[in-house]
Amino acid sequence: MRKENNGVCKAISLRKTAKFLKKHDNFVILTHSSPDGDTLGSAYALYYGLKEIGKMAAVICPDVIPSKYSYFVNPTDSIDKQNATVVALDVADKALLGSLSEEFGNKVDLTVDHHISNTKYAKYLYLDSSASATCEIIYELLCFMKVNINTRAAKALYTGIATDTGCFKYSNVTAKTHEIASELYEYDIKADEINKLMFDTKSKKLLELERMVLDTAEYHFDNRCIILSVTADMQNKTGCSGSDLEGIAIISRSVEGVIAGVTVKQTDDKVFKISLRTYFPLDASAICKELGGGGHKAAAGATLEGTLSEVKEQILSVIGKYLEEADNGTDSH
Amino acid sequence: MRKENNGVCKAISLRKTAKFLKKHDNFVILTHSSPDGDTLGSAYALYYGLKEIGKMAAVICPDVIPSKYSYFVNPTDSIDKQNATVVALDVADKALLGSLSEEFGNKVDLTVDHHISNTKYAKYLYLDSSASATCEIIYELLCFMKVNINTRAAKALYTGIATDTGCFKYSNVTAKTHEIASELYEYDIKADEINKLMFDTKSKKLLELERMVLDTAEYHFDNRCIILSVTADMQNKTGCSGSDLEGIAIISRSVEGVIAGVTVKQTDDKVFKISLRTYFPLDASAICKELGGGGHKAAAGATLEGTLSEVKEQILSVIGKYLEEADNGTDSH
Repeated sequence: MRKENNGVCKAISLRKTAKFLKKHDNFVILTHSSPDGDTLGSAYALYYGLKEIGKMAAVICPDVIPSKYSYFVNPTDSIDKQNATVVALDVADKALLGSLSEEFGNKVDLTVDHHISNTKYAKYLYLDSSASATCEIIYELLCFMKVNINTRAAKALYTGIATDTGCFKYSNVTAKTHEIASELYEYDIKADEINKLMFDTKSKKLLELERMVLDTAEYHFDNRCIILSVTADMQNKTGCSGSDLEGIAIISRSVEGVIAGVTVKQTDDKVFKISLRTYFPLDASAICKELGGGGHKAAAGATLEGTLSEVKEQILSVIGKYLEEADNGTDSH
Repeated sequence: MRKENNGVCKAISLRKTAKFLKKHDNFVILTHSSPDGDTLGSAYALYYGLKEIGKMAAVICPDVIPSKYSYFVNPTDSIDKQNATVVALDVADKALLGSLSEEFGNKVDLTVDHHISNTKYAKYLYLDSSASATCEIIYELLCFMKVNINTRAAKALYTGIATDTGCFKYSNVTAKTHEIASELYEYDIKADEINKLMFDTKSKKLLELERMVLDTAEYHFDNRCIILSVTADMQNKTGCSGSDLEGIAIISRSVEGVIAGVTVKQTDDKVFKISLRTYFPLDASAICKELGGGGHKAAAGATLEGTLSEVKEQILSVIGKYLEEADNGTDSH
């Protein structure tokens, strides 16, 4: 039996990470649960890179891989998990291994990540929080190792960078991000087809849900706050669930003049999940903390109990308080 | 009085274009009508560049410049138009000068453009159809001229490239596009704020219009065709018009499985403007030609007369014919 790591995490450099990969073999490459373009792109790009230098490796994902990533996903090797070298990519905490966390949570040898919040659960960690995506780091790693990057690997890397940056829109993009994208264009990646699939393809049922959700739009506080509601009934009628609903919060933060965009999503009879998106001077994380939740300054969430109108009232009262404080230039927090 | 150009257009190189700008002074820089990020970005970036080398220049736009571009727009010089050197940027045809075409249409000394369809109306033309945006070319020109690029110029150039490529999403993006973006990030351009303004800001009235338009969604031919309708009534109720409506066609081309996305927009009592977006194997330009219109393979339009349901019937009958031919593998055109 492999021994578990002793709970001490060592931060290593790109050079050491390359050395580690060259020295070991029989890799299990783990992604986080609810896999996105970056964790999958990183995993498959590293997989293809390791194959180029004659290693054995398997990509293992805690959940089913969405079919839209099939242009870079391939069957990988069969690996004896007990004696494997375990690598986790873009996984900030072992709990994010989801269904695999019990089996692998304490056995991760190496993590490569760009989340500053990484909880250092692995034996070795290569963290670059200035990278827009873990795929940026994997690209640099493969270049450093002088490993051939095949077309599928290039597509995987581009996908991770594009999806984690909203196609180069967000504040995590740097000069280096575009430099790497430029280099990936030297491969036959057909980036426009990838982008169409990742950003401009909406299912019919999601369009139907959006129609219903827009019908619920309510404005408050001189149009500075919008509330969109997604009831259980809408989810049942359209068949939309889970990841289908991620895009709804984006609508709430895109309305001109709105500095508090609220999405209220029913998850059970009298249970609602709140997504809050804010702009200056509102702090989403402070507002959601008062509601028993948490998050980042511009994006946070909470879970509230009650009827839809009770829940909306709760949120509005806290947002109203913060808006008033902002208007008066006071801040008691 | 300045003499008009004699109707012969000379294609020149980047080097010659730089030489032309250095040799002349008192520039009038023209944009096309209904100005977008690329024509405005090009014009202001060139303006700032010319100011850096001590030239006098005025940017003249045929229409009001939308306020969202104010982060790079500044008042420009007063120029005697009769004796000016006239430069048109991103203007493929003199008719696109709109309200300025009579005054300047036959007096353009230099055009810098990336449209392969440029009608060669100027005395000199520097055309690079491989460029994703005219701003790509202006960036190269300023670099070639070794002109200092100030922050506003860098923001203007980034804006043109981002808007003409759908934020690096479309097939016109090349390795060079990302390389230039990477170099522009070396300036303090705050690209995430620009992108938020250009791509993620929707007016309340537009959101309301979208809600109404989604209510009209009709699917035909096994969900391979969607029709969205924008009636005069909706435009009146929401106050949306003209450029507000541009985004609606994007919805029609984003639905999974749809290869014919139709937007029917009422422009008069019994007059409707059709926007058609298609994917392989359908040819939007062929379909619209049968309806008396025209355009490109993936995006075309036509104007039809009749009631809304008559107009929809007309379009559906032509699309149905083309779908049937595609299904049978026949093509009589």
